[in-house]
Amino acid sequence: MSFLKNCWYVAAWDFEVPASGFFARTVAGTPLLFWRDRAGTIIAFVDRCCHRGAPLSMGRREGDAIRCGYHGLKFDRDGVCVDIPGQERIPETARIQTIPTIERDRWIWVWMGEPSLADPDAIPDTHWLRHPEWRYKPDYMHYAVNYLMIADNLLDFSHLPFLHGDTLGGSDDFARAPVKYAPLDNGVRVTRYVRGVEPPPYLAKVSSLSSRVDRWNIYDFVLPSVLLMDSGSAPEGTDLETGERKGSFAFRGCQALTPETENSTHYFFAHCHNFSIDDPAVTESIHQSILKAFHEDKAMIEAQHRSLTLAGDFQPMAIQADAAVYRFRKVLQQKLAQEAMSP
Amino acid sequence: MSFLKNCWYVAAWDFEVPASGFFARTVAGTPLLFWRDRAGTIIAFVDRCCHRGAPLSMGRREGDAIRCGYHGLKFDRDGVCVDIPGQERIPETARIQTIPTIERDRWIWVWMGEPSLADPDAIPDTHWLRHPEWRYKPDYMHYAVNYLMIADNLLDFSHLPFLHGDTLGGSDDFARAPVKYAPLDNGVRVTRYVRGVEPPPYLAKVSSLSSRVDRWNIYDFVLPSVLLMDSGSAPEGTDLETGERKGSFAFRGCQALTPETENSTHYFFAHCHNFSIDDPAVTESIHQSILKAFHEDKAMIEAQHRSLTLAGDFQPMAIQADAAVYRFRKVLQQKLAQEAMSP
Amino acid sequence: MSFLKNCWYVAAWDFEVPASGFFARTVAGTPLLFWRDRAGTIIAFVDRCCHRGAPLSMGRREGDAIRCGYHGLKFDRDGVCVDIPGQERIPETARIQTIPTIERDRWIWVWMGEPSLADPDAIPDTHWLRHPEWRYKPDYMHYAVNYLMIADNLLDFSHLPFLHGDTLGGSDDFARAPVKYAPLDNGVRVTRYVRGVEPPPYLAKVSSLSSRVDRWNIYDFVLPSVLLMDSGSAPEGTDLETGERKGSFAFRGCQALTPETENSTHYFFAHCHNFSIDDPAVTESIHQSILKAFHEDKAMIEAQHRSLTLAGDFQPMAIQADAAVYRFRKVLQQKLAQEAMSP
Repeated sequence: MSFLKNCWYVAAWDFEVPASGFFARTVAGTPLLFWRDRAGTIIAFVDRCCHRGAPLSMGRREGDAIRCGYHGLKFDRDGVCVDIPGQERIPETARIQTIPTIERDRWIWVWMGEPSLADPDAIPDTHWLRHPEWRYKPDYMHYAVNYLMIADNLLDFSHLPFLHGDTLGGSDDFARAPVKYAPLDNGVRVTRYVRGVEPPPYLAKVSSLSSRVDRWNIYDFVLPSVLLMDSGSAPEGTDLETGERKGSFAFRGCQALTPETENSTHYFFAHCHNFSIDDPAVTESIHQSILKAFHEDKAMIEAQHRSLTLAGDFQPMAIQADAAVYRFRKVLQQKLAQEAMSP
Repeated sequence: MSFLKNCWYVAAWDFEVPASGFFARTVAGTPLLFWRDRAGTIIAFVDRCCHRGAPLSMGRREGDAIRCGYHGLKFDRDGVCVDIPGQERIPETARIQTIPTIERDRWIWVWMGEPSLADPDAIPDTHWLRHPEWRYKPDYMHYAVNYLMIADNLLDFSHLPFLHGDTLGGSDDFARAPVKYAPLDNGVRVTRYVRGVEPPPYLAKVSSLSSRVDRWNIYDFVLPSVLLMDSGSAPEGTDLETGERKGSFAFRGCQALTPETENSTHYFFAHCHNFSIDDPAVTESIHQSILKAFHEDKAMIEAQHRSLTLAGDFQPMAIQADAAVYRFRKVLQQKLAQEAMSP
Repeated sequence: MSFLKNCWYVAAWDFEVPASGFFARTVAGTPLLFWRDRAGTIIAFVDRCCHRGAPLSMGRREGDAIRCGYHGLKFDRDGVCVDIPGQERIPETARIQTIPTIERDRWIWVWMGEPSLADPDAIPDTHWLRHPEWRYKPDYMHYAVNYLMIADNLLDFSHLPFLHGDTLGGSDDFARAPVKYAPLDNGVRVTRYVRGVEPPPYLAKVSSLSSRVDRWNIYDFVLPSVLLMDSGSAPEGTDLETGERKGSFAFRGCQALTPETENSTHYFFAHCHNFSIDDPAVTESIHQSILKAFHEDKAMIEAQHRSLTLAGDFQPMAIQADAAVYRFRKVLQQKLAQEAMSP
């Protein structure tokens, strides 16, 4: 399997890349080095010296240039070699590949494909991550499975009551509620309303909602693997579809899966809320609930990975709840095929 | 290499499978889920949901059915799907493969091949494991080598004085004693009498035998990999072959090797004794001696495994003591060839 | 890749092989067993019983013979089997391959190729390791990379100021100093003089040199992978090339890389000094500095190894400082090709 190249991957939270010094992370099989010039602008290099392959992240900064820590080759911010100790002439080939990178709304995005195609407008809108009326705790998990196994999980929320009964889910009603799927150019939109159910446990902890509620979950899951979700709960009978959702408690979820290697994944996530925004205990409580649920997912998905490792010829059996899973896989396959045709 | 399929493998001790809840173990490369219905009868499923491959052992019991812990598919005791949350129609293919299983004399046996061929009468007799006149402590070891390397060890007891001098063995006389080999349809019978030797250390600890003894070791090693042994020691000069073996101390060994994967093995064992059966200290002493000896085997066999890993082209050199090893390998190859012909 | 066979590899320090008992180490993919006969002479066997492949190092000594710890086969000092328990006739093929081995100047050398070609005179001169006017602390490191990645490091000292600034190196002057390369039949000679620089930190600690010095580094790097180095520092202006190097502080470095497997290496080293030879604190200080520097190398080389593992198609870019690297690789390839032609 190969990874989609002409797309924006989330590579880091902004605070992971220090003002001076280096940050190293592998994206889609390629080790990357992130650093900031003196003006604070993010620069991304392939983290491999052109001389003998040593990681440049073991080197040092010299102003707006970096020097390899092994034999001392020095590269400017464009990756061009400007010094080879003991040698006058610097060959044309002495350069490091730079990777288009954009820091926006606290995420650092990278474009692993053809640089001339890197359109900043193609980055999904995650403005909740820096909006003053929303709060969240940024977090990251590392998974030892292919990123699509986690995508499958996020594309089908019918697992909530079975896997997350004590955190996100609730009764089986959630899984049995009708779901609408709408194809998007680069993914799929999933819409689910569940009416007259218990408030989800993680919300009940931090809200005044105690009797029955109506819930909504509307999310786009788009290439390469980003989930943007509008969800929440309101008193039973609220008009969720066209009205103002008065008295509701709303969330904006921003999650990104970035393949590290064929069998490992970076998972960036934030679960923003627009209530009690000045009460850090509420933000922390929501975050801990989300984290607990995500660890429930991780235990299941890694077990599923081990199970499939033992079953080379396993063919999954599609059910109705998988509609978004298959829609997303189809869009991904189409884009991969396109890239294979015009490399 | 492939594993023999149409045969009974020991999968567990009876107490490993709880009255409620699940027990998971991989046999011959296939992950299995064991559970008991409300009547206590053992049921074995392939531990893999037909939907997306999640292990069913991470799900839950619902009466005499089980529900997957990921997306909630429910299966009855025959493995037939009876509920798919959010979906009316249940396709024919929604089912879990069940595995013929029999609980007998404290071992749980499974048949990994064609179910219609699963003949309960083909299970070897291990009634000592539940007989009131015999005592033992049931145990289990996990090995990180192919099961045949352990079978080789058990098929040639000439290693006793060299590897187990302080536990099972004794002097070199044991290795040099004449041995008789008799072919069986599904294995080999090995008979060894050693006369006028020191009592084996592990027996000397718990018996009144102090001067010279005559020892006997008679065992069948049968497919897929089960050792059933009649052994013991008697005062020197006892008629071991046709008489009552008066004044002797006898053992019945029951051991089963079950491949987990190509390079790992489950090892179930019991060393039953018919003397001092009301003295738990004797049972414990015998067990600890056996365990010590088995760890001596494990250290050697795993070292042998590492050695052979570095020597791809190594050809073993057969010696006379290997007669049973080669007989058993031949029977196994014949059965494997038969299965390959009529799948 | 295959290893050079007709050459002497360092397999151990003399003190690693006890007077009685065994020492096991894998060289060039072959597990070896070292032991000493009653006269103290070193014997090397392939550490694998011809019967079923068990490591002989788990057996026992019986005078000047050894007995396998599994089934008791006994071999004399020439590897010839002299006893098979329970069997009269001993087949011709019952023997263990012996490996030509020589203990000289505290190193134990082995010849992994055709025994008749094993010429003791081909062993490099390392007499400083036992000379009364030199001191050092013998040491060993294990690396989880191919031995040639470490050889590359030793063949190009331009990395000193960048990787070892606080230990061996100093300013960039060292890397920028002119270097002479001279081809040798079995390797390469590297000569570097650096004049008017700070004394290297590790020498400053233990010598009276405080102002500027002239440094010399002259070393042969020869097949299979041995570095023999004449180096040191003298007061600025000393005639280093033809004179007596009066007032200088000199070192003789002896280092040997021995492949264990394709991706692991034994590294033997000594950094002999000819001053303050009766002050153990000086010897210890030098050793600790060297050790610190070697761990700096190890961190970089293992990072380089991980980096290259992710970059299957990486092509290094040669620079002038690589001259010795490419010379040595060429000599090695020629010898490997010769061995492939006349096996």
